[in-house]
Amino acid sequence: MSILVVGSVAFDSIQTPSGSVENCLGGAATHFALAASYFTDVRVIAVVGKDFTEEHEAVFTRRGIDTRGIEHADGLSFHWTGSYVNNLNEAQTLGTDLNVFQTFEPKIPESYKDSEYLFLANIDPVLQGRVRSQMSNVRMVCGDTMNYWIADHAANLAKVLRELDVLLINDGEVRMLAGDRNLVVAANKVLTMGPKTLIVKHGEYGATAFFGDRSFGSGIRAVHPFRAPALPLAEVVDPTGAGDSFAGGFYGYLASQPELTPAVFRAAMFYGGVMGSFAVERFGTERLQDVTREEIDERFKLFKEISHLEYSSS
Amino acid sequence: MSILVVGSVAFDSIQTPSGSVENCLGGAATHFALAASYFTDVRVIAVVGKDFTEEHEAVFTRRGIDTRGIEHADGLSFHWTGSYVNNLNEAQTLGTDLNVFQTFEPKIPESYKDSEYLFLANIDPVLQGRVRSQMSNVRMVCGDTMNYWIADHAANLAKVLRELDVLLINDGEVRMLAGDRNLVVAANKVLTMGPKTLIVKHGEYGATAFFGDRSFGSGIRAVHPFRAPALPLAEVVDPTGAGDSFAGGFYGYLASQPELTPAVFRAAMFYGGVMGSFAVERFGTERLQDVTREEIDERFKLFKEISHLEYSSS
Repeated sequence: MSILVVGSVAFDSIQTPSGSVENCLGGAATHFALAASYFTDVRVIAVVGKDFTEEHEAVFTRRGIDTRGIEHADGLSFHWTGSYVNNLNEAQTLGTDLNVFQTFEPKIPESYKDSEYLFLANIDPVLQGRVRSQMSNVRMVCGDTMNYWIADHAANLAKVLRELDVLLINDGEVRMLAGDRNLVVAANKVLTMGPKTLIVKHGEYGATAFFGDRSFGSGIRAVHPFRAPALPLAEVVDPTGAGDSFAGGFYGYLASQPELTPAVFRAAMFYGGVMGSFAVERFGTERLQDVTREEIDERFKLFKEISHLEYSSS
Repeated sequence: MSILVVGSVAFDSIQTPSGSVENCLGGAATHFALAASYFTDVRVIAVVGKDFTEEHEAVFTRRGIDTRGIEHADGLSFHWTGSYVNNLNEAQTLGTDLNVFQTFEPKIPESYKDSEYLFLANIDPVLQGRVRSQMSNVRMVCGDTMNYWIADHAANLAKVLRELDVLLINDGEVRMLAGDRNLVVAANKVLTMGPKTLIVKHGEYGATAFFGDRSFGSGIRAVHPFRAPALPLAEVVDPTGAGDSFAGGFYGYLASQPELTPAVFRAAMFYGGVMGSFAVERFGTERLQDVTREEIDERFKLFKEISHLEYSSS
């Protein structure tokens, strides 16, 4: 089934201990769409500027991603400059040029209206809400957000949270959103704000899914959380987009399955980790552009091997 | 088979967000021995003062722990005062009174000499080395250490590391010991220092085992690391001794098994997490004194349920 993603398509200038790149294709929607494209059809809603060329568009179309919802505006694309030189686990933002993103008004092409899965990447909750309200018949809505919206746009964010099936954020964000340092207490508070399921990303330590009372509408209720590992990597070239790639692998796998059972949900958590582990191997979206489905399945097995009691190493 | 543990038996005064206790029985050897006692025979080498009463000794003997190696000296027992009020993940040490521990010279009772498993809890590496050299016929040696010894007693610690089968430390310690922030790179460096296997504890995120070339001497080689989860807990009453309880569960289970296969090693990592999760439920060693083997097995199943793809929740 098809996923519609709304979010940023941007150019990133990044410094890490492994080196640096200037103006490489990035943005949450880009990482998400590429990661999800290995599992299902993906459609993107975003805005770009004149610096977004046919070559950039081909990065999407080569993966079969529908770009009819990418609006081309006058001006320059969103540009982010960040550094991980001092800490690979947290980006230091050196510059944010919103450019054409400043006046972004998401428009949903008619051909996107039958998308069954909606992903609201990290953008202004007002825009997330507008897209959500135009896609009222989707099977599932999953969303991301960040500290900036949690701190300064709480009321707008609260409205979006009420509409979510799955909220996918990181450790710091869930504690901030709930105002509690204990992960379980914070997760339970967030589950009262709307999302039926909360996925908390722990960076190099994996991710945890917490299920609310209304999870798995089919009547199956998961009482306990579920923890998926991350792959210990000897080199993280560029952490940018790891979380969005996790989301893409997770949601792409879910959307590819005929039925949403707890077992499917667990496997989706693993596929999220798998796509996140590929994303950080090279700068920008480079690795996500050329990974193969065979490599993905191989790494899925590796995730099982490093976390399962009975798994017999070959 | 029997485990001999050498380490501190102490009294702790602890403040946490859940409350505070004064002079409760603690120390690394105490937490370790209690946790391990649910799996196998445990013998303790430590020194205590006049404040260590028959009542305290009964905490050990009720669990079948051999206390003949606990030396009773003049003066007061080792006393630690710490607070977790600002951060449950890291103790703030408010006071350390070594007392009788200052002149501790471990003596190994004749009846302990046939112990097959040796655990060197976190004490001066010089003392760890002395015990190690008197127990040259053990089947396995596992050890712990801390930032203080890594920073200021590097040469003495290096000698102990060369004698270890398993080193069991936390994230910060492995990065400090290796001088590298990347966990995999740091782990591989530490594995060249002597230990055949390195277990890195990640607190609320679980633990990772890294295997060196010489792991599983039987010819079985584990190439990939293994990650065990921690149980997400809505209340951590007192984190003191969680790491030592992990070590006790891990090593106790290993020592209880006839053969050390990778599968046994993996299960031991889970039992470590299980005992750590019980330890933090109440102050001091309170919970470790009265847990039952049934509760342990039940929680082991829960650890599997929260981390395994195929596990069907009941």
